Amino acid sequence: MADEVILLNFWPSPYGMRVLVALEEKGIKYENREEDFSNKSLLLLQMNPIHKKIPVLIHNGKSICESLNIVEYIDEVWNDHSPLFPSDPYQRSQAKFWANYIDTKIYEIGMRYAKSKGEEKEAAKKELLEGLQVLEEQLGNKPYFGGDNFGFVDVALVPLLNMLYTFTFAGKFIHDEKYPNITSWAKRCAQKESVSKSIPQEDKVKRFVDEKRLVLNKD
Amino acid sequence: MADEVILLNFWPSPYGMRVLVALEEKGIKYENREEDFSNKSLLLLQMNPIHKKIPVLIHNGKSICESLNIVEYIDEVWNDHSPLFPSDPYQRSQAKFWANYIDTKIYEIGMRYAKSKGEEKEAAKKELLEGLQVLEEQLGNKPYFGGDNFGFVDVALVPLLNMLYTFTFAGKFIHDEKYPNITSWAKRCAQKESVSKSIPQEDKVKRFVDEKRLVLNKD
Repeated sequence: MADEVILLNFWPSPYGMRVLVALEEKGIKYENREEDFSNKSLLLLQMNPIHKKIPVLIHNGKSICESLNIVEYIDEVWNDHSPLFPSDPYQRSQAKFWANYIDTKIYEIGMRYAKSKGEEKEAAKKELLEGLQVLEEQLGNKPYFGGDNFGFVDVALVPLLNMLYTFTFAGKFIHDEKYPNITSWAKRCAQKESVSKSIPQEDKVKRFVDEKRLVLNKD
Repeated sequence: MADEVILLNFWPSPYGMRVLVALEEKGIKYENREEDFSNKSLLLLQMNPIHKKIPVLIHNGKSICESLNIVEYIDEVWNDHSPLFPSDPYQRSQAKFWANYIDTKIYEIGMRYAKSKGEEKEAAKKELLEGLQVLEEQLGNKPYFGGDNFGFVDVALVPLLNMLYTFTFAGKFIHDEKYPNITSWAKRCAQKESVSKSIPQEDKVKRFVDEKRLVLNKD
């Protein structure tokens, strides 16, 4: 029996994009189902009853939730090519450490920046820039975070591509020249088909966010 | 060469306790070094320069940070007995999902409860009780979260033992009779040597917290 792979998704979600990139890297055939947040599907509620959030991967009827967890699962199940993790346990632990850093220092603080104002917004901006600087140094001159090959940390960070240049909440204060390594890395990633197929055009996401007023407070 | 394993720790930390339990489960020889938070060691700052937090595992000179990440590393490196994860990728993904749930719905909300007051405290209490109820149902009649064997989710949750009965911020509203499965599980875990050696007596932690006034606002 061929594998049945369904992704419950919402196209502007960076978490959903991570899963798309991983599926494309592995060349897995899947069905992408867009969720309507004002009217969540019964399938979503059944498949992620705890958090009721996308992304959810449904593999032969079984659900896996949480974007990084899904990416790990994909790498473990479809392990015949394009490994996203190194085989060495220490290197694996480092990849997981940096993916966790990206979740807490980039995405979460980015959302805090977007939703706050005044002093809290300024504090989040400072933290976000510091976080990017740490990643800039961690990346260094390597092509990808794990070295020569596109891997787990790259998948975790790559949906940030949208934000790096024009995304509403970051574009105003993130300047390429301060982050030359990440800027080169972003361009390198964007040339990969797995990435270009999975990450929407920057202005499309920006328009969506502006329209939906997800960014509650602007500077 | 024998493995050199050093744990940078702080005894009341539930995150540090997770690592202790995993090391004991595997029968690994290690040196436990207590950190002084008012005067962090140079070694801690060198080994976890990003977060400067315990626990840090130093294995033959290389550092691994973040408690769940360390537990996974331990399980991958010392894989000859007492596996903490099932071998099936789907079951592994479920264990990671629940460990993440415990971090976000139990520890983080527990800390929010401890540090807040008024309406915010009441909201955190409600969320914490709901989170425990979800775990109660997830555990069901199984001896351990993963089934018959003590594993990753148990290691993640077991430092909560302290809180279940007498810990300041929870003891007043968590009643055994509402959580019979978790209560039985906690007693079962406490009988394991890996747990009893790693988890301090409840009143010792409570005294410490009271003395240090880590619990800022009491009901």
